[in-house]
Amino acid sequence: MALREETEQETGTPPPTATLGVGMVGYAFMGAAHSQGWRTAGHVFDMPVRPVLAAICGRDRTAVEAAAARHGWAAAETDWRALIARDDVQLVDICTPGDSHAEIAIAALEAGKHVLCEKPLANTVAEAEAMAQAAERAAARGQVAIVGFNYRKVPALTHARAMIEEGRLGRLRHVRATYLQDWLVDPESPLTWRLERERAGSGALGDLGAHIVDLAQYLAGEPLVGVSAVSETFVRERPVPAGAAAGLPGAADGTARGAVTVDDATLFTGRLASGALASFEATRMAAGRKNALRLEINGERGSIAFDLERLNELSFHDHTEPPTSAGFRRILVTEPQHPYLEAWWPPGHGLGYEHTFVHQARDVVRTIVEGRAPVPSFADGLQVQRVLAAVEESAAKNSVHTPVPF
Amino acid sequence: MALREETEQETGTPPPTATLGVGMVGYAFMGAAHSQGWRTAGHVFDMPVRPVLAAICGRDRTAVEAAAARHGWAAAETDWRALIARDDVQLVDICTPGDSHAEIAIAALEAGKHVLCEKPLANTVAEAEAMAQAAERAAARGQVAIVGFNYRKVPALTHARAMIEEGRLGRLRHVRATYLQDWLVDPESPLTWRLERERAGSGALGDLGAHIVDLAQYLAGEPLVGVSAVSETFVRERPVPAGAAAGLPGAADGTARGAVTVDDATLFTGRLASGALASFEATRMAAGRKNALRLEINGERGSIAFDLERLNELSFHDHTEPPTSAGFRRILVTEPQHPYLEAWWPPGHGLGYEHTFVHQARDVVRTIVEGRAPVPSFADGLQVQRVLAAVEESAAKNSVHTPVPF
Amino acid sequence: MALREETEQETGTPPPTATLGVGMVGYAFMGAAHSQGWRTAGHVFDMPVRPVLAAICGRDRTAVEAAAARHGWAAAETDWRALIARDDVQLVDICTPGDSHAEIAIAALEAGKHVLCEKPLANTVAEAEAMAQAAERAAARGQVAIVGFNYRKVPALTHARAMIEEGRLGRLRHVRATYLQDWLVDPESPLTWRLERERAGSGALGDLGAHIVDLAQYLAGEPLVGVSAVSETFVRERPVPAGAAAGLPGAADGTARGAVTVDDATLFTGRLASGALASFEATRMAAGRKNALRLEINGERGSIAFDLERLNELSFHDHTEPPTSAGFRRILVTEPQHPYLEAWWPPGHGLGYEHTFVHQARDVVRTIVEGRAPVPSFADGLQVQRVLAAVEESAAKNSVHTPVPF
Amino acid sequence: MALREETEQETGTPPPTATLGVGMVGYAFMGAAHSQGWRTAGHVFDMPVRPVLAAICGRDRTAVEAAAARHGWAAAETDWRALIARDDVQLVDICTPGDSHAEIAIAALEAGKHVLCEKPLANTVAEAEAMAQAAERAAARGQVAIVGFNYRKVPALTHARAMIEEGRLGRLRHVRATYLQDWLVDPESPLTWRLERERAGSGALGDLGAHIVDLAQYLAGEPLVGVSAVSETFVRERPVPAGAAAGLPGAADGTARGAVTVDDATLFTGRLASGALASFEATRMAAGRKNALRLEINGERGSIAFDLERLNELSFHDHTEPPTSAGFRRILVTEPQHPYLEAWWPPGHGLGYEHTFVHQARDVVRTIVEGRAPVPSFADGLQVQRVLAAVEESAAKNSVHTPVPF
Repeated sequence: MALREETEQETGTPPPTATLGVGMVGYAFMGAAHSQGWRTAGHVFDMPVRPVLAAICGRDRTAVEAAAARHGWAAAETDWRALIARDDVQLVDICTPGDSHAEIAIAALEAGKHVLCEKPLANTVAEAEAMAQAAERAAARGQVAIVGFNYRKVPALTHARAMIEEGRLGRLRHVRATYLQDWLVDPESPLTWRLERERAGSGALGDLGAHIVDLAQYLAGEPLVGVSAVSETFVRERPVPAGAAAGLPGAADGTARGAVTVDDATLFTGRLASGALASFEATRMAAGRKNALRLEINGERGSIAFDLERLNELSFHDHTEPPTSAGFRRILVTEPQHPYLEAWWPPGHGLGYEHTFVHQARDVVRTIVEGRAPVPSFADGLQVQRVLAAVEESAAKNSVHTPVPF
Repeated sequence: MALREETEQETGTPPPTATLGVGMVGYAFMGAAHSQGWRTAGHVFDMPVRPVLAAICGRDRTAVEAAAARHGWAAAETDWRALIARDDVQLVDICTPGDSHAEIAIAALEAGKHVLCEKPLANTVAEAEAMAQAAERAAARGQVAIVGFNYRKVPALTHARAMIEEGRLGRLRHVRATYLQDWLVDPESPLTWRLERERAGSGALGDLGAHIVDLAQYLAGEPLVGVSAVSETFVRERPVPAGAAAGLPGAADGTARGAVTVDDATLFTGRLASGALASFEATRMAAGRKNALRLEINGERGSIAFDLERLNELSFHDHTEPPTSAGFRRILVTEPQHPYLEAWWPPGHGLGYEHTFVHQARDVVRTIVEGRAPVPSFADGLQVQRVLAAVEESAAKNSVHTPVPF
Repeated sequence: MALREETEQETGTPPPTATLGVGMVGYAFMGAAHSQGWRTAGHVFDMPVRPVLAAICGRDRTAVEAAAARHGWAAAETDWRALIARDDVQLVDICTPGDSHAEIAIAALEAGKHVLCEKPLANTVAEAEAMAQAAERAAARGQVAIVGFNYRKVPALTHARAMIEEGRLGRLRHVRATYLQDWLVDPESPLTWRLERERAGSGALGDLGAHIVDLAQYLAGEPLVGVSAVSETFVRERPVPAGAAAGLPGAADGTARGAVTVDDATLFTGRLASGALASFEATRMAAGRKNALRLEINGERGSIAFDLERLNELSFHDHTEPPTSAGFRRILVTEPQHPYLEAWWPPGHGLGYEHTFVHQARDVVRTIVEGRAPVPSFADGLQVQRVLAAVEESAAKNSVHTPVPF
Repeated sequence: MALREETEQETGTPPPTATLGVGMVGYAFMGAAHSQGWRTAGHVFDMPVRPVLAAICGRDRTAVEAAAARHGWAAAETDWRALIARDDVQLVDICTPGDSHAEIAIAALEAGKHVLCEKPLANTVAEAEAMAQAAERAAARGQVAIVGFNYRKVPALTHARAMIEEGRLGRLRHVRATYLQDWLVDPESPLTWRLERERAGSGALGDLGAHIVDLAQYLAGEPLVGVSAVSETFVRERPVPAGAAAGLPGAADGTARGAVTVDDATLFTGRLASGALASFEATRMAAGRKNALRLEINGERGSIAFDLERLNELSFHDHTEPPTSAGFRRILVTEPQHPYLEAWWPPGHGLGYEHTFVHQARDVVRTIVEGRAPVPSFADGLQVQRVLAAVEESAAKNSVHTPVPF
C-alpha cells in the first residue's frame, strides 16, 4: 500500500438494483476481455444500471459451458439466434470473427436488442452499410448500436481528443500513425483463420489498420478524404496446423502448407478534410514491436504523441511556450481529473489494456440508459470500412490516390 | 481487437467447485484494490479453489453495507471479531491502518484462520514480533500468514528476481532504490491519519520505504545488515480538515492547524550481507514524481533497472555482451513465458497496478491449498520492520551506521 | 575531468608534414560546419596528410574576409573560378545553394581538383547526370568526387550499417524514416531562398528528404525501385524580408508577401529492390520536432532504430534472443571499438552534430591519399536525385507508383 | 545540410588581433580536451582576445613534442617552471594529476600568470587552502584563477541554474545526484595511477564525486553543511601492468598484483544550507552505466532532471501547471536563446562532451579581459575539497553526520 489519501468514507455509492442483461457471442480472447469489462465496470464506476452477464454463446457445448463458468456468465447457448431470443438479454455483444458480424448484429437489432459489435464492423462495405442501416432503424426505436473501437477508451487518448477539441494543437498539419506487431516475423508461424481472407476480411489492414484509422479520425475530429496505399504479403505460404490439414498434401507427415490470402503489412498516406496530411502503417512483421500503436499529431499550436506500449502516458508539446522552456512533456494520465480516472487508483498507479473494456462497458451502459447518441456508432464503423476499402482499391491500382466516399 | 492468436478452444478450464471464503477488514482504497484481486483471480487463473468474497468489515454500518454492495461482498460486519468468527470465512484479509494489524492478525490466527495482512506488517517491532510468533504457531497447525508486499507480484519484478537467482547479474555491487511521490508538496495539503505517528507509525518511511526495503532484499536475495539514515519533516504544521478540527483553535473559521508527526522524507544508505552497497530514498515531496518506485541493481555480470510508472518494462544490461552491442534493453514483460502472463493478454497488451492484487490473490490461494511455505511471510515482514526501526534509530543518532538485528 | 584511463604516452602520433590544400566555396552555416571539420580532423585522427584551410570564396569581399578570419582560412577569394585556379588548392569544397553545384563542381573537376559537394548533389537530375559524368572522367585521372551526406558519418549509423551488413537483421522487411523539423510552423516566418524553387530546387524534399533517402538506401544496402508520394505547401505566401522586398507591393510598409514555391512537407512510400517496404516523411511543420531524423529498420532476425536528436545512441532488437529477455537495447555508440571513436573521448562522453564533418574530412582525405573509390560518390548522389525526381513525379500524378530509373 | 536559416551575411565578426598566450601542463586525455577547447573557442564565439596555443609541457621530450604537433601547440617544454617563465604565456592551464596541482598553480600565480586548474583542485584540503590563498593574493594583482568544473558549461546545466535562480523550482526540497561509470567492474582491469591514493587523492569520490558535489551546490545556489557517508573498495588487488611491475612478486611471469588504495564507490547523504536533503553516489562499478552523471532537484514549484549521457536535454516539471497537463518535459537545450547556443548550430543539432571545454575557454578569456570575478573560483574548489574531506571523515567514523566547515 502506498496510497495518497483515503478515508473509510470513500467507498462510493452502492450499485443500483436495475440491471442490463448482456449476451455475448464468441468466447475467445476478445470474449475474455469483454467479460472482464462487464464483470468489473459496476464495481468501479457509478453506474445507472448494473450489467449482468446473462448468457454466452459458442458452437461447442462443452467449450461454451466451460467458458461460461470461467468468465462468470450465468448461462450458455450454442445458437446465437437462441441467445438473441432470451428475455434476460437486452444487449448483444458480438466478439466473433468479422464474417459473421453483419448477420448477428442485424438480427439482434431487429429483435429489439442493443448491440455492441467488435471492430472492424464487417468484412465488406456492403455488409457494413446494411448494419448501419439496421442501426439507424433501431435508433428510431430507442436502441443503441456501438462498434468496439476500445482504444478510444484509453484515458490518454480520450484526454488527447479533449485537448485537440479545446484547440491546444490549433490547425492540424500532420497525423502519423503506426500499428506495429511482430507475431508473423517467423515464416514458420502457422496459418490461422486470421490469415484467410474469407474469415478475416483482410490482414494487418483490418486488424490493426482499422484501429489507427479510427483513432486518427477520432482525435483529429475530421475524416480522411482520400488515400494512397501499398500492401504486401511477405510470406505467402505457411504451415497448416495438424488439426486443419486433413486432405492437404503433406497432412500425413505434418508438412502441409497453405496460402496466406491477406496482407502482412499495409502502408498508406492520406489527406484529412482540413488538408492535413496523414500516414499510416499496419504490420505484423516489425521484429521487436509487440503492440506499437503509435500516434503523433502536429498542429500550429502544439503536438501530441502516444504509444500503446506505454498507455498511461501522453506526450504533449505546447508550441506557444517560449522556446527556452518548450519541449514534449510526458503527462502521466492517471490524475483523478483525467477521463475515467475518478474511479481508479491514485496518481501514477497505472491502468492496463483490459481497462479499455471496463470503460467501454461503462460508456455503453450510460449511452443506453441516458438515451445519448451512440459513439462510436455503426455509421462511424461503416466510414472506417470505406477508408479500408479505398486503401485496398488504391493498393490494387498502383497506389493511385483514391477518394473515400462519404 | 488486435490480438495475435485465438481459437474458440482456448477458453481455459472451468473453475473449481471448492471455495475459500475471504473476510476483509477495511474497505478504503486498499479494500477496493484487494476486492478487485479476489473478484478477478478465479476468472483469469487456473485455481485449485475459488475465492468467495464472504464478508467485509468496517465500523460504520451504512458505509460498510454500501462498500459490500459496491465491491461484491456477500455480507457486511461492523465488528472484526464477528468477521473472524464467521464459519464462511477461512481467510482474513487485513486492510486497516497499521496500528490495528497486530491485534486483528493474532486473533484471526488464533481462531484458526489464514491471514493476509497489508504492509507494513505493524507499527512497531514488538507488534511485528508478536505477529511473527503467532504466525509460526499457526503454521504448525497448517495455517498460512502472508504480508501484502504486492509489488513482488509485478511481473517485471518477479522476472527480475528470477534473472538474479539464475546469476544473470553475477556478484552484486550496488542496489539503489527510490520511491518518490509528490502529494505533500503543497504546504496546504491537509493533515490526515497518514501524517500522525500514532495511527501510521511513520510517514514516507513506513508507507514507501517499506516497499523498497522489501523489494531490494527480495531481488538481491539477501538482507540489509546495517543502515545510516537522515529524515526530515519539511512542513511541520498542516491544516486540519473541518470534520476533525472540533475543539482546536481556528476550528470555527477553518484555520485550525495540527502538527505533522511523521517524516515527509527519509534517505538512507546501507550494506547488504554480501557487502554490496545500497541507497534508499522515500519521499512525498518530489514534485512531478507520482509513483516513482525506481530500482537499479548492478552486478559483475549485468544490471537491471525498473520504474513502477512503467511497470510493464524491465531494463536489463548484459555485461557479458561485446561492448559494441551491449546496452540496457527494454524488455516488455508481457510475453506468455513471463511470470503470471500465461493467463493474461497478448504481448504488448500491458497490465496495471491492480493486477498485483490479482496475482497476490492467486498466490495466497495456491499457498494455502498446496501447503507451501508462505512468501512473503510474517517473518519477512518482521525483518523489514527491523530495518525500518534501525533507520529511525540511525536518523535519531546523527546518522551513525546502525546494525539491523536478525 | 572524469576519465577512465590515461597515460602521458597516449598522445597519438605527430601529424604528417604532407598537406592537402582545401578551397571552400560558401561560408554560411554549412561553411562554418565544414571549416570546423577541416580544422579539427588532423588534430584528432591519424591522417596520412594534413588538411590546410587554404582559401575561402564568397561574393562579398568584406564578408568573405571576415569569414576567412573567423573560420581560420588563409586567404579569401570573391570569384569561385579564381579559387579553383589556385595552386595551393587541391580540393574544392562546395557549400553553396544547390543551383550552383553543377557549374562549380564540373569546373573544379575539369581543372584537376578533387571535389566535396554538399547535398543534394544538384537541383535537377540533368545537372546531377552531368556531374556524375564529370566525376567519372575525373576518376580516370585519379581525382575524387564525394557528395556530403554527412549523416553517414554519425558513428551510430556507420555502426548500424556494419551490423546490417553482418546480417544481424536478416532479410529486411520494413524501413521507416522521418525527418521532422518545425521552423516553418509559424505562418509569419519569412520567405528565404530556401523557399524558392529556383534556388533551392525543392523544399523539405530536397533538404530533409534527400538525407533519409540516402540513409535508408545506405543502411539497407539496396536502392529504392519505386515510390508513391504526396506533397503539400501548407502556407503558400509568407512575408518578404525588408531587404528583399524592393519593388513589391507592401515594400513600403513592410507588408510585402511572396509566394512559397517549394513543398513544406512531402510523404512517400516505396519498395526496395529486395521487396522490403519503406515509408518516408520530410516536413518543416512538425511542432516540437527540432531535428527528428528517425529511422527504423525491421528484419527477420532483428531491428534497429535511431533518432538524430539522440545521435550517440542506437537501438537494437535481437530477434534471435529468447522472448523473455529480448527487447530494444540502447547502445551508447561511444566505445573505442565503435566507428570513429578510437580517436575521441572515453565511453559515454558523447559527440555532437559537427563531428560528422570531422569524420567526413578524415574520410575524404583518406580516400584521396589511399586511392580508394569515393563513397558516397557523385553516382550515389545522382541516384538519390532520381529518387527525389520520381517522388515529385508521383506527387504530381496523383500519387501513382512511379519507378526509379537506374 | 539540413539547416533552417542562413544568409551569407551571417558570418560573425572577425576575430580580434589581441591575443592571450596559453601554456598547458599535461597532455593526456584532459590535455587533448583542453587543446580542442583552446583551438576552437575563437573560431566560434565572439571573443575579446584570441587564445594562442603557445606552449605545452610534459616530462618526456619526444612525447611532448609529438603532443605539441598533434594538438597544435607552438612550442614544447619539459619543465613546468620553464613554461611558467615564458613571456608568451599569460595563462597556465594545469591538466596534471591532483598531486601536482598546488605546486604548479601557486608558482604560476606568484609569477603573475592567470591559472586554469583541472578539478579536483587538490588532493588535500591543506593544499587547496594554500591555492585559494594564492589566488586571493593574485586577484588583488588582477590575475584570474579558475577551477575546471567543466560540466557547469553544459548548456542544459547552465540553463538549469538560470531557471532555479529565477525561482522556477521555488523552495528546494531534494537534490539527488549520481555519477555512475563501469570501467572497474572487471576485477582484472589493471592498476593505474588513478587507483593509487598518493597520486589520485581518492578514487570515485575525487574523480566523480567532486563533479556532482560542485554541480549540486552550483545548481542549488547554496552549500552542503553536513554529510554522512559510506565508502567501499570492492576489488582490493588488481594486476600491475607489465611496465610498472619491476621488482614486484610475479613481475617475471606477468602475475604481479598491487593494492588498490582508493575507493571504488562512495555514497553519501547531506543537508544543504536551506534544509533541503541531498544524496550522492559516485561509483566505477555500475555495469552498463558509462557516464551517468544524473541530477534531479525537486522544489515546491517544480523539478529538473538531467543525465550527462543525454547532455543536450533538460527535463523540467512545472508544478504550477494544472495536473491534467503537467509532466516532465524534455527541453532540447539547442535553441539560439539557450546559453552558449547563439554561436553553434540550428535547433536539434546537438553538442557533445568536448564543447564544455570550448565554453570554458570562452568564459576564462572573458573573465580575464572583462575583469570579472572568476567562477568557479579556487575558493569554490576549496569548498568542494572540504565537502570531500568531510565525506572521507564520515566514512571513516561509521557514517556519523559530519559538518562541512566554511
